[in-house]
Amino acid sequence: MSESSEIIVGRNSVMEALKSGRSINKIFIAKGERQGSVKEIIGFAKDNGLIVQEVEMKKLDELAKGMRHQSILAFAAPVEYVEVEDILAQAQEKGQAPFIVLLDELEDPHNLGAILRTADAAGVHGVLIPKRRSCPLSATVAKTSAGAVEYVPVARIGNVAHTLKDLKKQGLWVVGADMDGDKDYYEADLTGPMVVVVGSEGKGLGRLTKEHCDFLVRIPMRGKINSLNASVACSLLLYESLKQREMKAK
Amino acid sequence: MSESSEIIVGRNSVMEALKSGRSINKIFIAKGERQGSVKEIIGFAKDNGLIVQEVEMKKLDELAKGMRHQSILAFAAPVEYVEVEDILAQAQEKGQAPFIVLLDELEDPHNLGAILRTADAAGVHGVLIPKRRSCPLSATVAKTSAGAVEYVPVARIGNVAHTLKDLKKQGLWVVGADMDGDKDYYEADLTGPMVVVVGSEGKGLGRLTKEHCDFLVRIPMRGKINSLNASVACSLLLYESLKQREMKAK
Repeated sequence: MSESSEIIVGRNSVMEALKSGRSINKIFIAKGERQGSVKEIIGFAKDNGLIVQEVEMKKLDELAKGMRHQSILAFAAPVEYVEVEDILAQAQEKGQAPFIVLLDELEDPHNLGAILRTADAAGVHGVLIPKRRSCPLSATVAKTSAGAVEYVPVARIGNVAHTLKDLKKQGLWVVGADMDGDKDYYEADLTGPMVVVVGSEGKGLGRLTKEHCDFLVRIPMRGKINSLNASVACSLLLYESLKQREMKAK
Repeated sequence: MSESSEIIVGRNSVMEALKSGRSINKIFIAKGERQGSVKEIIGFAKDNGLIVQEVEMKKLDELAKGMRHQSILAFAAPVEYVEVEDILAQAQEKGQAPFIVLLDELEDPHNLGAILRTADAAGVHGVLIPKRRSCPLSATVAKTSAGAVEYVPVARIGNVAHTLKDLKKQGLWVVGADMDGDKDYYEADLTGPMVVVVGSEGKGLGRLTKEHCDFLVRIPMRGKINSLNASVACSLLLYESLKQREMKAK
């Protein structure tokens, strides 16, 4: 209930926020209120491990500040983002070549969560997410990340192309995974300062984004389906890079 | 038609189900929706004498139960399971060392879907799932698998320990991923006839299952979280194995 937490008011809004997977700290319901959609919300919240607290109606009136709360409201936590510069600075502090992931229009919270978890495990310095058309750091993301959302610095960026240009100027290589890649991912040198670009679940890397890649690597596909889950594809690249980095350091 | 496991949701999944020749009873599309891939699906369905029915968007929302249906869903006969022997026979037919995945108590449909997708891509011959305490091949699994559920043979097994013992008798190596592994996964020889065992999301490999492994490999963890998403961990092993198999064959 810190000052920065946002209040979501009313049955529909709270239910929508829950269903959308938004990060909720706590839910307040009026004492004795267990009917209809409130009951449904309580069930949903409990299934997702959220705190539901019974309070006096007066308390709700006070918090809702005149808005119709229909006996229910929720506190949602804003996530603290960092700046791209912070991520680069952190790599420098560690004396490591920057190792960054950029998620271009990734929309699935399970994928985002899994990628944050792998990013943590593979020693990635930070993850970049465009402000627009991306999955927010919701409760589902936090849950799927197994808590990695607390450890991996995430920066929100405006324009993907601008950011990539800027990172290239600072000496980073931009690597993307694509069926048209020149070589298999494990044949490419992934040891340098690097930003790994991951596309959307449906469409993969966009044309413009692809044009900003210094090189494209291919993940072998030996079956009938022509692409992998975004978090799996990203993880293969991150772990190949980690392996190469550690072998080089030996 | 009320069971969600028989409903296939979303353009990609429906298209893959059609292409694979799976038995489809009926296709529902939203009224007036004739654009892009929906048009393609309608054409394909009609060419194959399948019923395509226009319904209200509300009806689709209702049937999809929160999944993104993209204006289309299909009613299909449930996926047919195979026997473990069928999987081994298929490997033999292809003249390849058996390459099998066993999912021990995996419960998350997104993980199961992602693993089926990777299994298809990495040339796995089949996936084994215990009958008890496992995720069923639901609509969510089908969707996350991007249609791979239509192509990767899945066998349901009774007892994990018995199955592993039996596979070992038939010359397969049992490999598990575990923090206590002797070597990093990319340092192990993963080219032989092999069953890769994947544990549950929460607990990893069970003690008994671990005892049945011929060897355990470690996935390096360089961050704060001590395990990876199950589908990511499985995918790293499968792709390392694929790489080694293909390099050996060269």
